[in-house]
Amino acid sequence: MKLSKLAERIEGALEGDGDWEITGIAGLDEAGDGDITFLTNPKFAAVLEKSPASAVVVGRKWTGSSPCPVVRVDNPDKAMALCATLLGPAIPAPEPGIHRTAVVSDDAQLGEGVCVGPHCVVESGAEIGARTVLMSGCHIGHDTEIGDDCAFDPHVIVRHRVKIGNRVVIHDGAVIGSDGFGNYRDGGRWHKIPQIGTVEIGDDVEIGANTTIDRARFGMTRIASGVKIDNLVQIGHNVQIGENAAMAALVGIAGSVVIEADAMLGGHAGVGDHLVIGRGAIVGGKSGIAKDVPPGDYVFGYPALPFRKFVANQRNVSRLPELKKRIAELERRLAELEKRE
Amino acid sequence: MKLSKLAERIEGALEGDGDWEITGIAGLDEAGDGDITFLTNPKFAAVLEKSPASAVVVGRKWTGSSPCPVVRVDNPDKAMALCATLLGPAIPAPEPGIHRTAVVSDDAQLGEGVCVGPHCVVESGAEIGARTVLMSGCHIGHDTEIGDDCAFDPHVIVRHRVKIGNRVVIHDGAVIGSDGFGNYRDGGRWHKIPQIGTVEIGDDVEIGANTTIDRARFGMTRIASGVKIDNLVQIGHNVQIGENAAMAALVGIAGSVVIEADAMLGGHAGVGDHLVIGRGAIVGGKSGIAKDVPPGDYVFGYPALPFRKFVANQRNVSRLPELKKRIAELERRLAELEKRE
Amino acid sequence: MKLSKLAERIEGALEGDGDWEITGIAGLDEAGDGDITFLTNPKFAAVLEKSPASAVVVGRKWTGSSPCPVVRVDNPDKAMALCATLLGPAIPAPEPGIHRTAVVSDDAQLGEGVCVGPHCVVESGAEIGARTVLMSGCHIGHDTEIGDDCAFDPHVIVRHRVKIGNRVVIHDGAVIGSDGFGNYRDGGRWHKIPQIGTVEIGDDVEIGANTTIDRARFGMTRIASGVKIDNLVQIGHNVQIGENAAMAALVGIAGSVVIEADAMLGGHAGVGDHLVIGRGAIVGGKSGIAKDVPPGDYVFGYPALPFRKFVANQRNVSRLPELKKRIAELERRLAELEKRE
Repeated sequence: MKLSKLAERIEGALEGDGDWEITGIAGLDEAGDGDITFLTNPKFAAVLEKSPASAVVVGRKWTGSSPCPVVRVDNPDKAMALCATLLGPAIPAPEPGIHRTAVVSDDAQLGEGVCVGPHCVVESGAEIGARTVLMSGCHIGHDTEIGDDCAFDPHVIVRHRVKIGNRVVIHDGAVIGSDGFGNYRDGGRWHKIPQIGTVEIGDDVEIGANTTIDRARFGMTRIASGVKIDNLVQIGHNVQIGENAAMAALVGIAGSVVIEADAMLGGHAGVGDHLVIGRGAIVGGKSGIAKDVPPGDYVFGYPALPFRKFVANQRNVSRLPELKKRIAELERRLAELEKRE
Repeated sequence: MKLSKLAERIEGALEGDGDWEITGIAGLDEAGDGDITFLTNPKFAAVLEKSPASAVVVGRKWTGSSPCPVVRVDNPDKAMALCATLLGPAIPAPEPGIHRTAVVSDDAQLGEGVCVGPHCVVESGAEIGARTVLMSGCHIGHDTEIGDDCAFDPHVIVRHRVKIGNRVVIHDGAVIGSDGFGNYRDGGRWHKIPQIGTVEIGDDVEIGANTTIDRARFGMTRIASGVKIDNLVQIGHNVQIGENAAMAALVGIAGSVVIEADAMLGGHAGVGDHLVIGRGAIVGGKSGIAKDVPPGDYVFGYPALPFRKFVANQRNVSRLPELKKRIAELERRLAELEKRE
Repeated sequence: MKLSKLAERIEGALEGDGDWEITGIAGLDEAGDGDITFLTNPKFAAVLEKSPASAVVVGRKWTGSSPCPVVRVDNPDKAMALCATLLGPAIPAPEPGIHRTAVVSDDAQLGEGVCVGPHCVVESGAEIGARTVLMSGCHIGHDTEIGDDCAFDPHVIVRHRVKIGNRVVIHDGAVIGSDGFGNYRDGGRWHKIPQIGTVEIGDDVEIGANTTIDRARFGMTRIASGVKIDNLVQIGHNVQIGENAAMAALVGIAGSVVIEADAMLGGHAGVGDHLVIGRGAIVGGKSGIAKDVPPGDYVFGYPALPFRKFVANQRNVSRLPELKKRIAELERRLAELEKRE
């Protein structure tokens, strides 16, 4: 595709020669001749200067210099997503229909164009919306409802009585609706509390590989529309996650936590049970949350503190040897004075 | 079910009108008309006061006020488990027998009433006890022995020569008996140490979704009876876990650790290799254990300290700016005195 | 096998009676009559002194005393691996061929002696090298290339267009080539960035159970030869891992991180995006890496510091009460002096 045409497709303003043929798409580090690349973070501008890429997409206000033609756009990340769709390798469309090795209950309801891959299991009473794709080895439990245009990777497990919206993407090996961790102690032993609730997931949610989302003890574990969850994340029973919240890999959310809309949690962050992460709050990677986080706050550490306080603490601790010296010096001088009295 | 009858079934003392019809069970936050709910933690008493629930189960000694009839019991958590069984949705019983798509070795031994779900694999020499249920896609390795009345969710993997007791519950995608992480360095490279040991699991153990329990290098990784393990937990080779110990999600236990009976580990806690967590000890969430924890201790932090010490350290660090001010003030006053001499 | 012969096979120097019959292999804690055991760490010498083992393998320079015959070798870990192979239980060889329940595309290419287990799926255009074994339920995506002599445990998922070298071991439930976590924000919502890159894995790599390795946004996520990865590890998109690097369970590596050759990461360690862990560096368990780690450094903590600095900080913090006392004492003495003026 000619660069001029590509620039048009991504609604960008072209600066430079639009006749170049763009044949590929690559990150700044790896882009070569024929590739279009992206400067999404100004701190990598130095990499761009040495890049043999054939074109670069930048933000409208970027003021640096480029060795190749520039396409200015409102949102370089959005342009990247568009280019990946336009220039990426073709993905073979899954064949609609039920694979001969799949085991689908007679009373399951499958919408138009549904694809049920090899070795899938769809239990009694399950409903799957139009054009939803189950790759190989998925398990859909009884009476579970799944919306339209969902894409489930191989070995996704959605247990019984779960509700999932439209356009939900679930990656390989993720488990939705396994039992919550609920036990009571009696006679010196643990006994199981049946987990009779379920999970409700909105539209446009993405759930990472091998992530686990527990069903509620009673009622619902709720994941609102637009939530993005990375790999190997644990969501406990009765958790409520608000719209467009996002969390990175290996995050752990204990039971009955509320994460409000637009909140973000870094990798390995952990939240104790029954706490509230306020709307738009940011929890730094590896933070341990032991009390509510107010809306919009940026917290960090273990136990988590407002980011500035966390940084100040770290700096103060690293300067303790200096404080000790000042105290020793004071002691020396004071002893000197006392001697003179 | 009438409230009076339900109170009887859970061995509770009813205070208020027993004629109410109880049709459901719900958490304090969500209970509505017709529901029975539970006050298991006095700190949620304020929620109860505004609840439209039809009845509430409380502890014998609770002294607060309730807007609805009260059922007093010895152990509200136990009553909750009973009510969930009595009032929860009926779960379709799995059909006993071997699904036509399962691959079961001719010399595997299956007890009476065993259910082997679709796409399961049971290898040569495996033994499965009476009434044990394997849901879809489970893999049971050769010469593995599984007891009676176990329940394995979809895609549970139990590798070869593992021994599992009775009434063990294993959730979706958990892996029991994968190789331990054992390598030696020679000629500047890593080489694998064969992991020829196995795993032994007692009775009444529960293992969470996508959790991994490694087989021993030699001998046994041992999980004693009554142990409860949450989702996404890693148990290394040759670990020994004592009776009724419990650990939350994303915990990591390195090789050859001993966790004694009744110990509890919070989410994301990690224990270094060859260490001992003493009987009944509590390890706080996200703690990093780098030395043995004595029986009964409550430790927290990274590296973990006795809880009081951890809290005192945090407080002391947050007050460093104040210490610095006091030192500066001392320096000023001392300089003043020195000048006068 | 006679001890004298075993000593010969592991190229060891025997001290003591070589006529003992060695029938098993066991760890120091568990070794009994007939077993050979291993002293790989001198700190366990006391355990050896009370051991009923029939022989022990030690390093050439070890100077302690032993209650049983000793075999001296250059590398006791290497000898342990050899003995495990010689004395461990026989493992039934998987039968070559395609299991009748496997679903293999007509245009997939399978090398000589390949074993495709029950319920596996091999998609169009995939190539699998000679003698590679797929245990039950593996999924190999379209156009993926896998080398010779690989061993994939049950339920391994390798998505489309991935390249894997020779002698690669992948444990149960691991996912290679799932989508990276890439979203952009537009109109107050998250939108997915297609992940059109892939994963390239060298020779002799080992990948743990339920570990997830994401495909690149563009280009490649690269795992070089000899890398060893434990269970439940997350490797983000576009990560580059150098030869013979190793990482323990529950480690999380964010996108575009570079881990150079021979680096080692302890359990639960986390590395922020775009950072570099230098050649041979060691990252302690549970550390959080927020800036580059120079080659050969040993860092620890959150945020990570050079190990000595980390330890000094911990010690200084724990001594804060003492500092406070010294300040209070200075204040008292100074006030005394001031009064006298």
